[in-house]
Amino acid sequence: MTDFRIRPLGDRVVVKPVEREEKTKSGIFLPDTASKERPMEGTILAVGEGRRDDSGKLVPMNVQAGDKVLFAKYSGTEFKVDEVEYLILSEKDILGIIQG
Amino acid sequence: MTDFRIRPLGDRVVVKPVEREEKTKSGIFLPDTASKERPMEGTILAVGEGRRDDSGKLVPMNVQAGDKVLFAKYSGTEFKVDEVEYLILSEKDILGIIQG
Amino acid sequence: MTDFRIRPLGDRVVVKPVEREEKTKSGIFLPDTASKERPMEGTILAVGEGRRDDSGKLVPMNVQAGDKVLFAKYSGTEFKVDEVEYLILSEKDILGIIQG
Amino acid sequence: MTDFRIRPLGDRVVVKPVEREEKTKSGIFLPDTASKERPMEGTILAVGEGRRDDSGKLVPMNVQAGDKVLFAKYSGTEFKVDEVEYLILSEKDILGIIQG
Amino acid sequence: MTDFRIRPLGDRVVVKPVEREEKTKSGIFLPDTASKERPMEGTILAVGEGRRDDSGKLVPMNVQAGDKVLFAKYSGTEFKVDEVEYLILSEKDILGIIQG
Amino acid sequence: MTDFRIRPLGDRVVVKPVEREEKTKSGIFLPDTASKERPMEGTILAVGEGRRDDSGKLVPMNVQAGDKVLFAKYSGTEFKVDEVEYLILSEKDILGIIQG
Amino acid sequence: MTDFRIRPLGDRVVVKPVEREEKTKSGIFLPDTASKERPMEGTILAVGEGRRDDSGKLVPMNVQAGDKVLFAKYSGTEFKVDEVEYLILSEKDILGIIQG
Repeated sequence: MTDFRIRPLGDRVVVKPVEREEKTKSGIFLPDTASKERPMEGTILAVGEGRRDDSGKLVPMNVQAGDKVLFAKYSGTEFKVDEVEYLILSEKDILGIIQG
Repeated sequence: MTDFRIRPLGDRVVVKPVEREEKTKSGIFLPDTASKERPMEGTILAVGEGRRDDSGKLVPMNVQAGDKVLFAKYSGTEFKVDEVEYLILSEKDILGIIQG
Repeated sequence: MTDFRIRPLGDRVVVKPVEREEKTKSGIFLPDTASKERPMEGTILAVGEGRRDDSGKLVPMNVQAGDKVLFAKYSGTEFKVDEVEYLILSEKDILGIIQG
Repeated sequence: MTDFRIRPLGDRVVVKPVEREEKTKSGIFLPDTASKERPMEGTILAVGEGRRDDSGKLVPMNVQAGDKVLFAKYSGTEFKVDEVEYLILSEKDILGIIQG
Repeated sequence: MTDFRIRPLGDRVVVKPVEREEKTKSGIFLPDTASKERPMEGTILAVGEGRRDDSGKLVPMNVQAGDKVLFAKYSGTEFKVDEVEYLILSEKDILGIIQG
Repeated sequence: MTDFRIRPLGDRVVVKPVEREEKTKSGIFLPDTASKERPMEGTILAVGEGRRDDSGKLVPMNVQAGDKVLFAKYSGTEFKVDEVEYLILSEKDILGIIQG
Repeated sequence: MTDFRIRPLGDRVVVKPVEREEKTKSGIFLPDTASKERPMEGTILAVGEGRRDDSGKLVPMNVQAGDKVLFAKYSGTEFKVDEVEYLILSEKDILGIIQG
């Protein structure tokens, strides 16, 4: 799973968003009927080596390939490989990790 | 209570907002009739490990799971697990801890 | 007075604003007739432990519970406990301490 | 003169603006007829202890009570004590000291 | 390939964008039919020596001439040499490297 | 010439702008007929002691009283002493020094 | 060529833009027919000593007098000496150096 075709730079990660039907099954993040926007759920496919702090040291990433994560719906940039949608986004835009 | 299904990243926390009726009972934060916006009340369910400062050190969190807190109404991102509403927000958006 | 029900986080303070009549009596901050906005007067009820600087050290607060202070009218967030209005605001928004 | 009723916080100062007539007498800062805005003139009545730099050290103030100063017309916050107008502003908004 | 006629300064790189037809062949980044904007694909022709951090040290570049990369469509500045289009952009605007 | 009546604070300088006719004589900075805005020319009359860097040290000024300088037309604040126009501006707004 | 009449301050440089006809001859940067803006080409006539970093040290310049450079069309400030157009701009606005 670390062999995804795109290797993200800096603190970016590649995420495969979870489809709507899967969400309903797991009981999380049903379609929003309220006014406020909901975050999206996805699986991390590849992670960058991390950003460098002010003194040039690498800041280790807090997520890894395989993690299921929540992220804000409009963060990141979409792209397609062989007709499948992916997103590339900064670790800062990941809200939390879905456990178990 | 630390076993909430979402583990927040960085200095984020997961909060369960208090319902309107409960607020009235406790005597705090009645529905706003004035022009200015009121903060919301909630209970912290899970906390991140904290943000890293400029030199990469972890800054310890000032809140913990179980704390009742005040936060600005429009901060954070809402999500649902099994039809229950939660918010994930940065510790910086928490105004204070409600005591006793 | 340090036992106020809300314990502010970081460099925030809880302030009880002074009523308009009291201001007139003390000779300070009469109702504004000019174009420019006037600051408000209030009494500090509770103070946070202070913000942390870039290296993680606590920066001590310059105000304490009991101080009468001036602050910009639109800073901070209002809330009510038992029908009484309070504000929670950052120490940075406090302009000065009223002496004597 | 250091006993002004408001003690400014941080790098703020309290200034008493000079009246228009006085300005004309001293030959400085006549009423603006041109397009560009002119600075105001005033006398410093009280100074804060200074701001703290990134490492928490106090940065000494460059002005003191009694200094006549130039400042941009729209900087700071106005207030009144006993019907007299004052301004509270940051030292950063003071352009220069009027000598002699 | 490191002898491209423009030597980028700082953390900039010169990129030759991939033509639309080539993309279709490789199976990546088909023309967008959805609402969200897709990143572009290109080949790096020249890289700067890197930006300097706050203490003046060079931060090494993470990309090199020959790398195939993804970048946001509107980042950078276009220019032409002998009727061929190139872009010069900051390394920060490169989202990831396309592998083998 | 260092005895100008206004002593600028921080990294500010007082500049006496050159009149339009003088500019024409010296062959520099003719009235603009093109779309883009031209810088102004002036003579520095007084300089502040410099700004303090993050650790509180004074950063020495690069200009001195007597220097002829170029500066962007809309930078700084105008003021008058005895009917003569001056500007007070930050050293950062000075583009260059006009030599001999 | 280092004796240009304007000595730029900080990390600024003086650039003489290349005329349109010259560009066509060299095969670079033909007039733009596409939607995106093209950078300009010019020759550096004078360079400042560099900016100072946070600790007050000079950051050396990456360009020197005589360099042919690319820069974004709307960066910098235009001025004229003896009817000839020049630009003064920050080194940060220089995209790259044109080689040989």
